[in-house]
Parts: sequence; C-alpha cells; structure tokens
Amino acid sequence: MEEDGTKLSLTIVDTPGFGDNINNEGSFHDIVEYVEKQYDIVLAEESRIKRNPKYQDNRVHALLYFIAPTGHSLREIDIEFMRRLGPRSNIIPVIAKADSLSPPELAAFKKAIMEDIAYYKIPIYNFPYDEEEDDEETIEENDELRAMLPFAVVGSEEEVILNGRRIRCRQYPWGYVDVDNPQHTDFSKLRFMLLSSHLQDLKEITHDHLYEQYRTEKLSKDGDVDPEEEEEALRQQEAALKAKYQARQHDREHPSSPVSQTGSVDVAPPRPSMDQQ
Amino acid sequence: MEEDGTKLSLTIVDTPGFGDNINNEGSFHDIVEYVEKQYDIVLAEESRIKRNPKYQDNRVHALLYFIAPTGHSLREIDIEFMRRLGPRSNIIPVIAKADSLSPPELAAFKKAIMEDIAYYKIPIYNFPYDEEEDDEETIEENDELRAMLPFAVVGSEEEVILNGRRIRCRQYPWGYVDVDNPQHTDFSKLRFMLLSSHLQDLKEITHDHLYEQYRTEKLSKDGDVDPEEEEEALRQQEAALKAKYQARQHDREHPSSPVSQTGSVDVAPPRPSMDQQ
Repeated sequence: MEEDGTKLSLTIVDTPGFGDNINNEGSFHDIVEYVEKQYDIVLAEESRIKRNPKYQDNRVHALLYFIAPTGHSLREIDIEFMRRLGPRSNIIPVIAKADSLSPPELAAFKKAIMEDIAYYKIPIYNFPYDEEEDDEETIEENDELRAMLPFAVVGSEEEVILNGRRIRCRQYPWGYVDVDNPQHTDFSKLRFMLLSSHLQDLKEITHDHLYEQYRTEKLSKDGDVDPEEEEEALRQQEAALKAKYQARQHDREHPSSPVSQTGSVDVAPPRPSMDQQ
Repeated sequence: MEEDGTKLSLTIVDTPGFGDNINNEGSFHDIVEYVEKQYDIVLAEESRIKRNPKYQDNRVHALLYFIAPTGHSLREIDIEFMRRLGPRSNIIPVIAKADSLSPPELAAFKKAIMEDIAYYKIPIYNFPYDEEEDDEETIEENDELRAMLPFAVVGSEEEVILNGRRIRCRQYPWGYVDVDNPQHTDFSKLRFMLLSSHLQDLKEITHDHLYEQYRTEKLSKDGDVDPEEEEEALRQQEAALKAKYQARQHDREHPSSPVSQTGSVDVAPPRPSMDQQ
C-alpha cells in the first residue's frame, strides 16, 4: 500500500474468536507464541553466517488491542491479555465499535480504562519521548496523542458519496457515522500515527527494546531455567492479579467499604520508554 | 408501577458481571440456583397446611437474555446459558445496544441468532398459540412478534424535550436514537408485550409448564438419583454441546469443507408450547 507517497508493506494478523469461549484461559497462549516465534526467527537469522537475502521482518510492530465498548472498565481478560503481551509488543489500546457510546460516556470510559492501565501497571505504547533530544513539536504531538488514549474507532466497509465526497461511513436510521471525521471517531488520527508519524518509532522500540529484552531473556535462560518452574511462576503471577482484580471489582461495587479506592490513582506504569534511556 | 391503568408489581433481578471473567464456567450456576430456589419456595408453600397470607410469588416469569451486538452469531456462553435456563423460565432473547448495528447488519444478526437457536434446539419463549382456541388476532400478533425475535433494544437514561415531546434518547454527534421509536428500536414492542399483552401468558406458562416440570423432576428424583451422577450427566451434555459448537464454528470458517452446513436449517426447537397441549 502507499501512504504519503511512500510504499509500505503491511502485514495484518487477525485473531478471530479471541475471548468468545466460556473458558478463555488458553486464549493468549497462541498469540504470545506467535509474537515470540517472530523474534525467534530474527534471532536465528542474526546468528547465521550467510544471511538470507529474502529475509522478511515479520515481527509485530504494533498490536491493536480492541476493547469491547462496555462503558464500564477493563474486563479481566483485557487486563490479562495486555499484561502478557505488553512486554513483547507495542500495545495500542483501541475502543472498538465506539459509535455505541455517546461523547460523555466515551470520555468516562476512556478515563476508566486509563486508570485501570495505571492501576494494574499494564505496559502499553504510551507515546514516549526524550525531553532533551526530541523537538518541541514532537513532544507536543505525543502528549496530544497520549491524551487521546485509548483511541475510539468505528469501522465500516461501506462507501457513500455525500455532498460530492466519497466517505466511509455507517448508516443508521438516525444519522450516519463518518469514519474519517475526527468529531465522530479517532480513526484518522490512529491511521496517521500508525502508518506515518509513528511508524518508525514503533519499529525502533520493537527492535531496540522489546526484541532486545526477549533476546536477553531467551539467551540467558536457555538450559538454565526449568520450563516447569517458569510456568509455575507465571501461574502465581496470574493468581495474584486475579485476586487484585476481584478486590478492585469489590471496591467498585461497594464504594463505601472501609478499604480505600485510592490505589486507582497510582502513577503511570514504569514502561521502558525512550526518555528513560 | 402502572401500565394501562393496571397496577403492576414488578421485581427485576439483575446479574451484573455475567460473562466478564476469563473463565465463566461457574456463571450460570448462581442464576440457575436462584430461579430454582423460587420454585422451591412455591413448592414448600403449596404443601403447607396453613397458607402464609403474606406469600408473594417471586418466580421469574420472563428472563431477558441480553446478547452482545457482535453481529456474528451466538457465542458459546450464550448457547450454554439459554440451554441451561430455558427449561426453567421463559427466555426472551434481546440484542443489547442494538444501535451499533445498521439495519442490514441487524437483520442478518437476528437471522443468524434464530438459526443458532434452532440448530442448538434452545428452548426460548417463542410466542406459542393454540390454533383452535386462540382468535385470529392473537395468532397474527404472536406470529408478528415471533418474527421480530430477538428484540433489538437500546437503553437510555437521558430524557430530552424534542419538538415539544419528552423522549428518552441517546445523543450522538451524528444524530439521536429515540428509544421509543419503532423505526429505531424494538423497545416499545417489547415493553408492551412484557407488561401488557403477554404478561398473563408468561405467568401461565411459568406456572403450568415450567414450574410443573420442575416439580415433577424434583419430587420424582428426591432420594432417587445420586446428585453426583446427575452432575456427571450434565457435564457430558455440556461436553457434547461444546464439541457441536466447535464443529459448527469450524464449518462456518471453512464453508468449502466437505462437512455440510445444512444442519443449520433444522426445524424449530420442540418447545413445550401451548398448541401442543
């Protein structure tokens, strides 16, 4: 595809059926495995003497995580998924089908999601910058994009000519949602950020931080750590997270309970961002 | 509350958090238990010598099952829930937040849901009638309501004065959804049916069929059947249903596969309806 006159090779990996079952314990497993597999391929390629001229980088440079427009807060499955995948790829949280939320509902939902992301210390891609190296414009742009998180999007496969202009929209009996209209959705901002303004940054973070982190873990543990022990540690982490989730849900449902809720205004997650390097 | 000048005592039981966890295996348990508990209370009341003058019928006469507006088909949890609760209460399937589906999407989604309900033989309240006893008008009305299933609803707590009329609506940047406008949602039809036209029928079916069925099962098995055996039978049924679900999902994703899809045009579920009595 072409974007701003630059040819772009884009691979999209979809995960149909994610979270559709009664028991979704195994839902992340395949996705984590897929993402790590791409790192393994790069790792194998790096250690080759004779490089493969046809080598293609299939690493996941950005992971759009679609959140159901419940209007409440993150569900257990959202938290667990992002927590598991965050250290492996740039997660960009996105509210799907945002046209079912009115502007005040959407604002409240975005706020609740970001509070959850901070509370559970979920590592997302939060438009990091380096105050010393980056120019003012970049810093401002990143602050603006970060304030929009999570992006609220509406998809459509329908194209309609309206006032002589071809638009992608969803037609309802009460009006039409123009997918590219920033008053209606964040789609155009997200598109520009992904394919243009932040494409390079997403690739760099993937290579310099996420892949590097995976590589270090992988090489330092090969033959060292018992996979069963590792699995057990993961299970314990999950159980702890589950307990935390249940306590928080309980707090939310019984706000008058003596256990305070102030945990939710924790500081932002300690993500390995550019400005810390 | 009052409806058409008749005083109505309405109890609403909500089930917050249903299906929100990663593993929802236990989600139905509490709800089944609650519904059966109400039958047990009636059963105990019936066998008393001295009746309780303050006795209040708290049986669940109608169970609105809210289906998420995915636009695809029923999820495993929907099927399992309705299959478990259908023999115990009048299930009325409802598409929640239907304002996120355009009219053609909504029509296709309704069709897919009803196909699933037939395919998995899910016992819902399908507006039964007796061709010999009921008058033509009732038959026509019921046919019409049955054709609308599942009802597509949109909720709102917002009231706005529009053209001098007070309406409940949802306001979006692209228009407003009038909850009571039949062009926008099925809410007014559902409301009228529940609180007025079909109130008596729902209560009668609950008492004459669903409760009677429960009573027979309960009295015939007390001391007779091993609860563990029963639990095991239920587990086996669930496993069979799960296998069926997975096969169907596979068929849907690979429509060209040799296994045919014609199972989906099965006849309607053999519900214990009025016209069979």
